Amino acid sequence: MGESDMGSAADGLSRRIFLEKLAKIGGTAALLAGMDALGFGIGSAMAAPPKLGGTPKQKKVIVLGAGNAGLASAYELTQSGYDVAVIEARSFPGGRAQTARKGFTLTELGGATQTCDFDEGLYINHGPWRIPYHHHSTLHYTRKFGVPLELFNNDNDASFLYFERGTGPLAGKRVRKAEVAADMLGYSSEILAKLSRQGALDARFGIEDKEKFIEFLVDFGALSKKDLNYTGAEGRGYLVEPGAGVDPGPGKPSVPYKMNDLLDSGLGHMLSSVAREWTQQRTMFQPVQGMEQIPKAIARNLPKGMIRYKTEVQRIRQSPDGVTVDVLRNGKPETISADWCICTIPLSVLKGIDHGLSPAFAAALAKCAYAPVGKIGLQMKRRFWEEDHGIYGGHVFCDNPDVNNIAFPSTGWQGQKGVLLGYYNFIANAAKVSAKTPAERAEMAVAYGEKIFPGAYRDSYENSFSVAWHRVKYNLGGWGMWSDEARATAYPVLTEPDGRIYLAGEHMSYIGGWQAGAFESAWQQIERLHARAMKG
Amino acid sequence: MGESDMGSAADGLSRRIFLEKLAKIGGTAALLAGMDALGFGIGSAMAAPPKLGGTPKQKKVIVLGAGNAGLASAYELTQSGYDVAVIEARSFPGGRAQTARKGFTLTELGGATQTCDFDEGLYINHGPWRIPYHHHSTLHYTRKFGVPLELFNNDNDASFLYFERGTGPLAGKRVRKAEVAADMLGYSSEILAKLSRQGALDARFGIEDKEKFIEFLVDFGALSKKDLNYTGAEGRGYLVEPGAGVDPGPGKPSVPYKMNDLLDSGLGHMLSSVAREWTQQRTMFQPVQGMEQIPKAIARNLPKGMIRYKTEVQRIRQSPDGVTVDVLRNGKPETISADWCICTIPLSVLKGIDHGLSPAFAAALAKCAYAPVGKIGLQMKRRFWEEDHGIYGGHVFCDNPDVNNIAFPSTGWQGQKGVLLGYYNFIANAAKVSAKTPAERAEMAVAYGEKIFPGAYRDSYENSFSVAWHRVKYNLGGWGMWSDEARATAYPVLTEPDGRIYLAGEHMSYIGGWQAGAFESAWQQIERLHARAMKG
Repeated sequence: MGESDMGSAADGLSRRIFLEKLAKIGGTAALLAGMDALGFGIGSAMAAPPKLGGTPKQKKVIVLGAGNAGLASAYELTQSGYDVAVIEARSFPGGRAQTARKGFTLTELGGATQTCDFDEGLYINHGPWRIPYHHHSTLHYTRKFGVPLELFNNDNDASFLYFERGTGPLAGKRVRKAEVAADMLGYSSEILAKLSRQGALDARFGIEDKEKFIEFLVDFGALSKKDLNYTGAEGRGYLVEPGAGVDPGPGKPSVPYKMNDLLDSGLGHMLSSVAREWTQQRTMFQPVQGMEQIPKAIARNLPKGMIRYKTEVQRIRQSPDGVTVDVLRNGKPETISADWCICTIPLSVLKGIDHGLSPAFAAALAKCAYAPVGKIGLQMKRRFWEEDHGIYGGHVFCDNPDVNNIAFPSTGWQGQKGVLLGYYNFIANAAKVSAKTPAERAEMAVAYGEKIFPGAYRDSYENSFSVAWHRVKYNLGGWGMWSDEARATAYPVLTEPDGRIYLAGEHMSYIGGWQAGAFESAWQQIERLHARAMKG
Repeated sequence: MGESDMGSAADGLSRRIFLEKLAKIGGTAALLAGMDALGFGIGSAMAAPPKLGGTPKQKKVIVLGAGNAGLASAYELTQSGYDVAVIEARSFPGGRAQTARKGFTLTELGGATQTCDFDEGLYINHGPWRIPYHHHSTLHYTRKFGVPLELFNNDNDASFLYFERGTGPLAGKRVRKAEVAADMLGYSSEILAKLSRQGALDARFGIEDKEKFIEFLVDFGALSKKDLNYTGAEGRGYLVEPGAGVDPGPGKPSVPYKMNDLLDSGLGHMLSSVAREWTQQRTMFQPVQGMEQIPKAIARNLPKGMIRYKTEVQRIRQSPDGVTVDVLRNGKPETISADWCICTIPLSVLKGIDHGLSPAFAAALAKCAYAPVGKIGLQMKRRFWEEDHGIYGGHVFCDNPDVNNIAFPSTGWQGQKGVLLGYYNFIANAAKVSAKTPAERAEMAVAYGEKIFPGAYRDSYENSFSVAWHRVKYNLGGWGMWSDEARATAYPVLTEPDGRIYLAGEHMSYIGGWQAGAFESAWQQIERLHARAMKG
C-alpha cells in the first residue's frame, strides 16, 4: 500500500480507534484485543533528503527492491557518487505503489491470475492512493520530478454513510454526512449552550468567556440566538433546494433527524473534529494518472540499466568487507557483490529468504506482523454517484467490515465511466474476502453497493480488479504492523545496521504503510551508511 | 461575480452571519443593521434545462447580455427553434464570469486602466471562482460542453487563521485552522462529556443513549477515555512530526492552546459544523484554466455571429406585438426587433438605461441594491505558502475587513509561481479600498500579507490585477442584494414579464450572486416565454 490507512475507513479516526469501532460494531473484540496498541506512525518529519557530502571510500551499494524506499536510496546515493545496483523481482518499479489499468496482471499466491480489463484511461490505485499535505518527503519527489498532482477528495460532505448494525430508524438507511454532522453538532451545541446559560460552567469561565462560548456554540451549531434551540440548518441540505423566481424561490428547509436516532445508529462516530488523525487531514493529493507515476518518475531519473528487473534475491551473505547477493535474473543465477546493502524487501518476505542475518536481527524481523488488506476496483459504465447524487469523490463509509469503504474516483469528473473502490478491508475480513475468487469478490462488492445505490450499482457494473496484498508474492501483506511490545524491543534492533546491511521501508518508520515512511526511512539509512562509508 | 460569497470569508458561515461577524469584529454595526436580513439565496433547484417542446408561433427573441444567463437562454431557445440575437456590450462572453490573464484589460469608472501582466499560464478568476457540488445547473453545462473541472480547495485544515482584533496571546498570531478546530472542539467535548457523566443530561437521555453520547464525544473530541480530559490531539499537528527510525520515531505531540485564550481571540468563530452555509460545503470545483471556460464553451455552441459584441443597449421599447432595441454597435446605431426579449442586464445598469418599462416595474427595479465587491490577484514569484508551510489551496481568514480572505490557487500545484487572491472585500470596505489606485490597493494587500508571512510575502510579490465590481461599467456591483422588504414586494413583480420583456440573471433567484442563479433564472424565464409563444 505504501499507506496504512485502515483509518481511512473511519474518516479521520485513527486506525487504532477504527479497529475499536470495528470491534464494537462487528463484534470482533477478540481481534481487537491483540491490536489495540499497534503503534502505527503518522506524519512526516523530513522535508528533504540528507546532504551526503564528500567522497565515500567504499561506494558500491546494492539496493534490494525498487519500491519507493529502494528508488529513493538509489537516486540519492547515485547523486552522491555511489555506484548502485538495484535488484527488483518485478518487471516494473514501485513495489506496492501500483496502478492497475488495462493489461495489468496480478497473480495471487494460490489464486487466479487477473488481467485488468478497464477501459483505456481508467485505473485504480490498488496500493497507496493518497498523499497528505504534510508528507513532505513524498511531495519532495513529486515536485523534484514534476509529477503533476491533483486533489484527492478525502472528505465529502455530500457523500453517504450507511450503517446497518445500529438500531432505530436510521439503521440501514443511507444518509448524507452533512446531515449527520449538522444534526449531531447542532444538538451537542444546543445542549452545551443551554447548560452554559444555566450556569453549569460558571466555575470554569468568567462571565465574558461564558458569553463568548455561547456565541461560539450558536455559530458552530446553527442555533437560534433567541432560545438556543437547534431545529435544523441549511448546511444539512434542503427538502426543496432554493432556486429561481418565487417557485422554488427560497426552497424548503429539511427536517433534522432525532438525536436519539442518531445515537442509536452509531453514525456520529463517523464524524471527526479533525482532532483524531493527522494523516487523514485535508488537504490530500494523488498524482495525475495514478500513483505509479511517482516511482516511475524516480526510476526514469536513475542511470539506464541500474535497476535489474525480474531479478529475485535467493541468498544474502556478508563478510567484514562486503555483501554478496545471489539472484535469479530472468531465471538465471548471478552473484552481485557490493560494499553495502540497503534492503527494502518487506520483512514478511525477507524472513523467508536465506538472508544470513544475525540471530538477534532474524528474531527481531519475525516480530513484525504484516496486515492482510484487500481492495477492489469496479468499473462502472455510468458515474451514477455524480449524475444521480452529486457525489464527486469521497467515501461511503459503512459498518460492514468486509466492505468498510466505497470510494469514488477523484479524477475524470463528469466523464462517462469511472472506476470506484468497491471495498477496502483489513485483517480478518481481508483474509475472509480474499479466500473468494475474483468473480466472487466482485459479486460481494456489487451486491453490497446495490443496497446503497439500488437500481444503479449493479446495472452500471462492468468489470473488476481486486488485490489481496497478503496473497501477493513479493509483499505478503499491506504494510508492517508493530505491537507496542515489538515496537519497543524488536524495532530498535532493526533500525541499526546488521553488519553492512541496512533495512529501509515504511516498516522502519512511524509513518507505517505510507509512502512517506518508505522515503524517510531510506533517507535516514543512507545518511547513516554514508557516515560510515566516509570513514572507509 | 456570478457568486455572492461574502460568506466565503467566513469559511462556511452564511453571508448574513459573516456580516454579523464583521460587525462584531470591525465595529460596523451600523452597516450591518441595514443588511441583517438580505435574504441571499443558496442552493440550486433545477438540474436540467426545461424541455421546450413544439414549434413556437412567435420565435424571434432578443437576448440582452451574453453573461451566463444570456448565453444559456440563447442556447436553449436556439435548440428549440427560436431565432435569437444576443446583444453584448463587451468584446467577450461571460459577463462577470471573467478570468484575468496576460493582456486582459479593465477600466474602472473614473479609474485607471489595468492591463493584466501575469506570466503566461497564470490567471485569477476575479469574478465567480468556485462551483458547489449541488449547483446542478452550472455543472450541467460543464458536463454538456466538456469543460474540464478540477477541485477547488475551499477548506484546508492546514491553512492559517489570523485575527488581530481579539485579545489575549493569540491575537495577531497566525494559527493553523486544525489547531483551533482540535482545541475548541476538544474542550467543548470534554465539558459536555463531563457534564453528561455527572448527570446533567439525565433528563434528556436514557442511560444507554447517555453512554453512546459520551462515546461520541470521546471520539469527536479526542478525549481520554479514562478521565474525559482533552489534552491535545494528533490532528492539531506535532511539535516534532513522526518519522523514520527511533529519532524522530513517534515524534513529539504539540501542546493545545488554552480555551480562554481561544475564546478571547475569537478564532473559534471561523469554525463551522458544516451546518451553516449550504453553498460553502465540500465538494467544490473550478474549471481548468479559469471560470471563463464555461461561458466560452456555451458561446462556442451558439450559431456563428449570434452574439453581437461591442454592442451597447441605448433604448428599449415594446408594443403589444414585439420589442425594439436601439443599440450602438461598434459605435454605430442599429435597431433590432423581435417578438420577445430576455433582459439579463444587471438591474444596477438597467435602471440607468432608457428601458421604457412600466412604472411598477421601474419602481421595483430600483429596490435591488448591488454589492460593492473587490478582489485582487497578486502574482508571487515563489509559492511560499506551499514550499514553506505545506498550505495547498484554501483560505487564510483574517479579521481585517479590508482583506478578509487571502486565498491560494487550487491549481498549478508545486509550480514555481502562482497568483493568489490578496483580498476579498465587501460593501463599505470594498468602497474604501476601491478608492485607492491599483498600485495602492496592491501595496495594502502586500503589507497585510507580509504580517502573516513575514519575509516571504513582499519578497515574492511581482504584480497585481484588481477589480472593484461596483466601478465596472457594465456591472456596477458584484451581485444583486434584496432586503427582506424588497424580496417580498419588488422581487415578485420582476419575476413576471413586463409585457414581452422577461428579466433573467442571478438577481432573479435565491441563489444570488452564484452562476447557478443566472442559469436557473434563465431556464425558468424561457420556459414561461415558451409557454406564451406556443399560444401565439
